[in-house]
Amino acid sequence: MQTIEKTEPKLLDLKNRLAEINDIEAAASLLYWDQATYMPPGGAVARGRQLATLQQISHTKFTEAALGDLIEDLSLLELSLPYHSEEASLIRIARRKYKQAVRIPASFMAEFSRHRTDAYEAWTRARPENNFALVRPYLEKTLDLSRQLANFSPDYEHIADPLIDFADYGMKASFLRSLFAQLRDELVPIVEAITSQPAPDDSCLTQFYPEAEQLNFTLKVIDQLGYDFKRGRQDQTHHPFMINFSTGDVRITTRVYQEDLSQALFSSIHEMGHALYEQGINPEFEGTPLSGGTSAGVHESQSRLWENLVGRSLGFWQFFYPQLQAFFPPQLGNVSVDTFYRAINKVKRSLIRTDADEITYNLHVMIRFDLELQMLDGSLAVRDLPEAWRERYRSDFGIIPETDTDGVLQDVHWYSGQIGGMFQCYTLGNLMSAQFFAAALAERGEILAKIKQGEFLTLHNWLKDKIYQHGSKYTAAELIHNVTGAPLHIEPFIRYIRHKYGQLYSL
Amino acid sequence: MQTIEKTEPKLLDLKNRLAEINDIEAAASLLYWDQATYMPPGGAVARGRQLATLQQISHTKFTEAALGDLIEDLSLLELSLPYHSEEASLIRIARRKYKQAVRIPASFMAEFSRHRTDAYEAWTRARPENNFALVRPYLEKTLDLSRQLANFSPDYEHIADPLIDFADYGMKASFLRSLFAQLRDELVPIVEAITSQPAPDDSCLTQFYPEAEQLNFTLKVIDQLGYDFKRGRQDQTHHPFMINFSTGDVRITTRVYQEDLSQALFSSIHEMGHALYEQGINPEFEGTPLSGGTSAGVHESQSRLWENLVGRSLGFWQFFYPQLQAFFPPQLGNVSVDTFYRAINKVKRSLIRTDADEITYNLHVMIRFDLELQMLDGSLAVRDLPEAWRERYRSDFGIIPETDTDGVLQDVHWYSGQIGGMFQCYTLGNLMSAQFFAAALAERGEILAKIKQGEFLTLHNWLKDKIYQHGSKYTAAELIHNVTGAPLHIEPFIRYIRHKYGQLYSL
Repeated sequence: MQTIEKTEPKLLDLKNRLAEINDIEAAASLLYWDQATYMPPGGAVARGRQLATLQQISHTKFTEAALGDLIEDLSLLELSLPYHSEEASLIRIARRKYKQAVRIPASFMAEFSRHRTDAYEAWTRARPENNFALVRPYLEKTLDLSRQLANFSPDYEHIADPLIDFADYGMKASFLRSLFAQLRDELVPIVEAITSQPAPDDSCLTQFYPEAEQLNFTLKVIDQLGYDFKRGRQDQTHHPFMINFSTGDVRITTRVYQEDLSQALFSSIHEMGHALYEQGINPEFEGTPLSGGTSAGVHESQSRLWENLVGRSLGFWQFFYPQLQAFFPPQLGNVSVDTFYRAINKVKRSLIRTDADEITYNLHVMIRFDLELQMLDGSLAVRDLPEAWRERYRSDFGIIPETDTDGVLQDVHWYSGQIGGMFQCYTLGNLMSAQFFAAALAERGEILAKIKQGEFLTLHNWLKDKIYQHGSKYTAAELIHNVTGAPLHIEPFIRYIRHKYGQLYSL
Repeated sequence: MQTIEKTEPKLLDLKNRLAEINDIEAAASLLYWDQATYMPPGGAVARGRQLATLQQISHTKFTEAALGDLIEDLSLLELSLPYHSEEASLIRIARRKYKQAVRIPASFMAEFSRHRTDAYEAWTRARPENNFALVRPYLEKTLDLSRQLANFSPDYEHIADPLIDFADYGMKASFLRSLFAQLRDELVPIVEAITSQPAPDDSCLTQFYPEAEQLNFTLKVIDQLGYDFKRGRQDQTHHPFMINFSTGDVRITTRVYQEDLSQALFSSIHEMGHALYEQGINPEFEGTPLSGGTSAGVHESQSRLWENLVGRSLGFWQFFYPQLQAFFPPQLGNVSVDTFYRAINKVKRSLIRTDADEITYNLHVMIRFDLELQMLDGSLAVRDLPEAWRERYRSDFGIIPETDTDGVLQDVHWYSGQIGGMFQCYTLGNLMSAQFFAAALAERGEILAKIKQGEFLTLHNWLKDKIYQHGSKYTAAELIHNVTGAPLHIEPFIRYIRHKYGQLYSL
């Protein structure tokens, strides 16, 4: 790349501009991380302002006409290079993001940013109070702003498409509807078959597990799985997340419930999956739009792959369970690995998405996805949302939340972001994780045996080679095709579910 | 202020521009805080780049011609308002800082910033190796850049003056030389008299004191002294410091030596003194150049006032010592408060500035101050600095460092900043602390009795009222005159030293 830069000063100019924007975004990310981890309460007001300022500066710099001109001037160079060369990809991805950003006026960004802060603040009061009326006007404004945001796009098939594009470039509501419908048709009978059988006993998970030991065990696990602590750290936050400031500094957070062992354990492995992706990106991409995972769905595929396909597998626990027992002898000394494995894979119809098993999780996602589309296309008013939510849980799960706290107020997404494009990534991630994992097993037959021995490097290296290193160079669709030889489809996930749960239950 | 803004949109425009710059600087400060506290080692390279980017953006925005025009356009408004009104002060201080900044080209700022990073990195290797030769070329470049920096100023009496101005606005080398000479004449005979007597036994301080208990005790002390933990927190770093991101978020750091009780204790109180100043500034100044302490010297006066005049006083320990004993019964159970008080006030001729007692500390500062002036005016070459250092310690202290590690390499300042203006603030702070404290005692005679009872609010409120709340509205000289009715002079410090050490030793 150095050589081309010498003959193409405009490429260097582009990279320098993008690196500056990247630095500002990294600083904004740190402001956010600190807010969630260590900031004293007195810092909140100024922090909101500081975040908005940096976001505005980065948006302004990214949408400068000079940057657009530079990208256009580099079109000839781009065409002269192989499509997937670093240089052509850099120019291509920068153009895509520039075109997306330049449509949105800075004043709108600032207004939406301020509104999100207000809406979030209202939600933090409304949720514990079970008070949907309190957030309703905020959510109505969010819907209005979300529609405006979508309408900055020149054309679309469904008004949700531009919003879905932000997170999962190239995906459309029509495709997702059809994909999710196929998936639902497969999953509903499985859930039916499982929940008609006696439920496994998962009481071993809900004993008292002291915080410090839980944290020590999660650190031990993610260290063994391959998380690089020289380029990361784990802290505690109210909601777990992964965040990065450079390829050399990719952090995760977790939360510990002393009465629920599975919370910290699986949220740590989940966030570590996101982090392995970011830690594995080619360091030469640093400061360019090629750094960072390529889409929300692909990112989620990596967190779910490690959390579920690895972390909830029997082989994984055949290796780790004796160590877990040694951490918690009174709690688990008399619990067999088989009982523990059934407990962490208990399937049940429940109200809360984040606590759901890996099968029903997708049904939770589909409800939210459908409601987003209905609100955006005008067929569902915000005032009717709580009732629509209850009705969907009744029809899809056969249970009805008694409160909005456990219903429409449970997820932060609509109250801190937009309506539209917020949920599809979770089920996309589940589907992709199975498709990627099947490809890995097909190419490296030894992976399952290695996991049983506590050797995760074979899998980690395969993922790094096939997925992580490429950052955003390939779109999700390109990546899935390159890695698995097929477009995204539901069969690998269904096969995985049938196989695993066929052994746990009679299907 | 709101009313004036309505009729003067240019004032609002100025405030908005300054607030944006303030937000960028706060983000840069957080990047620095994180680097010193929690950042994993892999983040270092990108962090340096991110810091440089934010500094460059803030410098560019602060030196925009439009900002200068705005300040000039507001001159008439300024003249129409009382000199010390908030509005006039805001315009005045903004103009002063603008004029200072606009002289320095952004390219020079960037070059100096990069060089400082390199020089600091070399120093971290050179210091433990006792290898002055390694840093010599860096220090020579630092001297060259420091001279260039000074020469951006249109005129000066001594080339150090513009550099002193950055930290202690309005101070000049000629004034400081004369002030320090008077002080030296007073202190040298006192040190002579004290060190000719038997040294007190301070072995009680150098027992094993576990880290966790030390930290808990320091937290208890600074809480009682008035540090607001809702608007701050204490973390551990290699070098203690205070840093703030808003008036609602003013943090301190400390370091613990398990074999030296005084390290964490007094560094915590010291940094807390800085923090009380920042926490006490009028919150309406937030985001303007009126926020922040007015000079390095005045800032240091507040840290030293709490550390020394309060924290090393007998009354303070009459209150806190029983609590300290309860934290450390095996170590201090049989040590009397009198023995402890003598130990923490032991005066001795030593090599290390940061470990020095409150009398000899000033002699350490004067050596560095004089050497800075000599290097800047060309009478001392960098290659001769180690020898000049040894010669001054021989003549001023009667002892010679055996290594440069304990000599010219001991302080980070010249290796991470400029040469010139880096040290005078420490002795200015000592002098001012005594002058302010004497004024407090004159107005609130009950302060010493209150301290003995563990009541620090009377003193704290007086400082807030007289000093803290004003932020940078008054210059150091104006503030000292307003608060004490006299210009800065050495007598209060000399009286304090004579009185305190007259009771500890025969003088």
